[in-house]
Amino acid sequence: MQPKQSIVSLPVYQPGKPIEEVKRELGLKEVIKLASNENPFGSSEQAKAAVLKEMENISIYPDSFSTELTAEVAKFLGVERDQIIFGAGSDEVILMLARAFLVPGDETVMADETFSQYRHNAVIEGATIVEVPLKNGVHDLPAMLNKITDLTKIVWVCNPNNPTGTIVGREELKSFISQVPSHVIVVLDEAYIEYITDESALPDSVALIGEYKNVILLRTFSKIHGLASLRIGYGAAHVDLIRMVNQVREPFNTTRIAQAAAIASLADQDFVKSCRERNAEGKAYMYKQFDRLGLPYFEAHGNFVMVDVKMPSGQAFDGLLRRGIISRARWKHYPNHIRITIGSQDQNEAFIAALESVLTEAAVLG
Amino acid sequence: MQPKQSIVSLPVYQPGKPIEEVKRELGLKEVIKLASNENPFGSSEQAKAAVLKEMENISIYPDSFSTELTAEVAKFLGVERDQIIFGAGSDEVILMLARAFLVPGDETVMADETFSQYRHNAVIEGATIVEVPLKNGVHDLPAMLNKITDLTKIVWVCNPNNPTGTIVGREELKSFISQVPSHVIVVLDEAYIEYITDESALPDSVALIGEYKNVILLRTFSKIHGLASLRIGYGAAHVDLIRMVNQVREPFNTTRIAQAAAIASLADQDFVKSCRERNAEGKAYMYKQFDRLGLPYFEAHGNFVMVDVKMPSGQAFDGLLRRGIISRARWKHYPNHIRITIGSQDQNEAFIAALESVLTEAAVLG
Repeated sequence: MQPKQSIVSLPVYQPGKPIEEVKRELGLKEVIKLASNENPFGSSEQAKAAVLKEMENISIYPDSFSTELTAEVAKFLGVERDQIIFGAGSDEVILMLARAFLVPGDETVMADETFSQYRHNAVIEGATIVEVPLKNGVHDLPAMLNKITDLTKIVWVCNPNNPTGTIVGREELKSFISQVPSHVIVVLDEAYIEYITDESALPDSVALIGEYKNVILLRTFSKIHGLASLRIGYGAAHVDLIRMVNQVREPFNTTRIAQAAAIASLADQDFVKSCRERNAEGKAYMYKQFDRLGLPYFEAHGNFVMVDVKMPSGQAFDGLLRRGIISRARWKHYPNHIRITIGSQDQNEAFIAALESVLTEAAVLG
Repeated sequence: MQPKQSIVSLPVYQPGKPIEEVKRELGLKEVIKLASNENPFGSSEQAKAAVLKEMENISIYPDSFSTELTAEVAKFLGVERDQIIFGAGSDEVILMLARAFLVPGDETVMADETFSQYRHNAVIEGATIVEVPLKNGVHDLPAMLNKITDLTKIVWVCNPNNPTGTIVGREELKSFISQVPSHVIVVLDEAYIEYITDESALPDSVALIGEYKNVILLRTFSKIHGLASLRIGYGAAHVDLIRMVNQVREPFNTTRIAQAAAIASLADQDFVKSCRERNAEGKAYMYKQFDRLGLPYFEAHGNFVMVDVKMPSGQAFDGLLRRGIISRARWKHYPNHIRITIGSQDQNEAFIAALESVLTEAAVLG
């Protein structure tokens, strides 16, 4: 049995440690997970009600075409229905893009570091990965543009970027896309877009997909909509691009419950707005505390902050874990940074107290 | 933008027509869908209760490793935990097998006709499809064996076969597998296995994966467990094979709700048994009616029957649809057969009445 050469030594994705596992391993009663950028405020009550209503149809296959949800998302974005494709999270749209377009010999350009699933899926397809270092934590678009060749098939822009939380400028993004050759697909991964509070920083992504046939934006219901457990996200692009991605979509790739919950959650923009506002408050609190502790951080536009803890991040991670806080650490290029989800005020305060204790123990703080 | 050559003219999967769509199109009030082999008896009450309990965790990512469900399925099958992999339906395990193993130039052997997703996924990967005609509706294992070459990577055996409902003999299957070279993966797709009532016909698939490192069995919670809308199924095989498939698994490929429902449903074997018995009763009724109407059919081991309606199946499909029954028709090699799900007794009676009317209208019946 000979698997694809490309997958033999592929690293397995390491998800954030589950709360139950940490409780068991460390004998802790209370554990706060700020590791996976989940919504600390849960999800819309209307989404939950929609799930309950779907219980009667549990034995029936989902609508393969997500007809009703497609109509709602198209209306929300102001695009046509055939410009949308759904996946089990935007993760699956990333998979489908790679599976539909990348073959061995192709090149694909991405930031280093950024969301790991671009690389993961491109490696499986045997494509050559071209990584471009972030510049002060931000996508270096001019450098990425320079790396595009005739062999390039896909360029990935995670905006806000995971894990740094930074965004690229609106005009800079426009200028970049206008210079990308039309044979190259530009993926704008906007998983955290709804958290942006600075209107002037909001990318014109929907206008961009109208203007450029080679741009696809990705969004998800896992983050601000708080439906991570249900696995639903989407891509939006020109109909020709969507049609090609659709060729590799599994017939029943999203669940009936996820479709119903997403429709309800999209309609509940009050919930979205409230989460954005509470996240902004939490971020302001985190910034203030990091400033007090003398810890530098990247400007955060999502629901997480990448902060320099001035000690090896693995050690900080372990110290936080013993105090009941799950963070994310051991980043390739940021050995002293941890990524922390902005939680509820209680969670944030518990995190800061734990962090202060870890820093004191490690003599980072005087 | 140049997609993989293999996907350009790939046909899009045509799911069974949704009930709501038929109601709308034909102005019907009552529509019975017997097109997708769903469970007419719904799903376990315990599974539904498990879903409700998971509602509080809706914003939290699922357990990437399906830890608890894996333990339960391993216990159920009597295998080790690392011998199991979960997918969003066994559909996704099929995708992962193709994605992990098939590259252009590889050959893959399958029956014609059988479940369409083997071919679909193998085509995407650029493999050469080697199709072996069914013999009286049954997999022709000796002929399939003859088609295996040094280039063959995967052989697919759908047992019971979709769409014919037939099974291969237990000893014949063993003999086949003992002769398949060890470099070839044998996929035993047992989506409908729980419906088999004849103990002597039950394949020894769990023993086979213990004996042969190159055999993987696929099972699903979509059929007898009645959880089609939740998308969960699994593969079981030697740990080395599972490890390779796992390399291409998406981190969060099954939902929290599906994992919880599957655990509860697996524990509710009374529900499974009751569905198997009611299905057998429905099948006996269908057989009796087809005999009365003089319609030949394949011996059915799943929850569906492939019956020769002695007229073009598309015409029969349309006639049934106008009478509020959704069936499956237009099979490549069976132009006069429709595939009909065995429903509840009421549904079966309504189907037979509609069929009789269609046959009379078409002058098939005198």
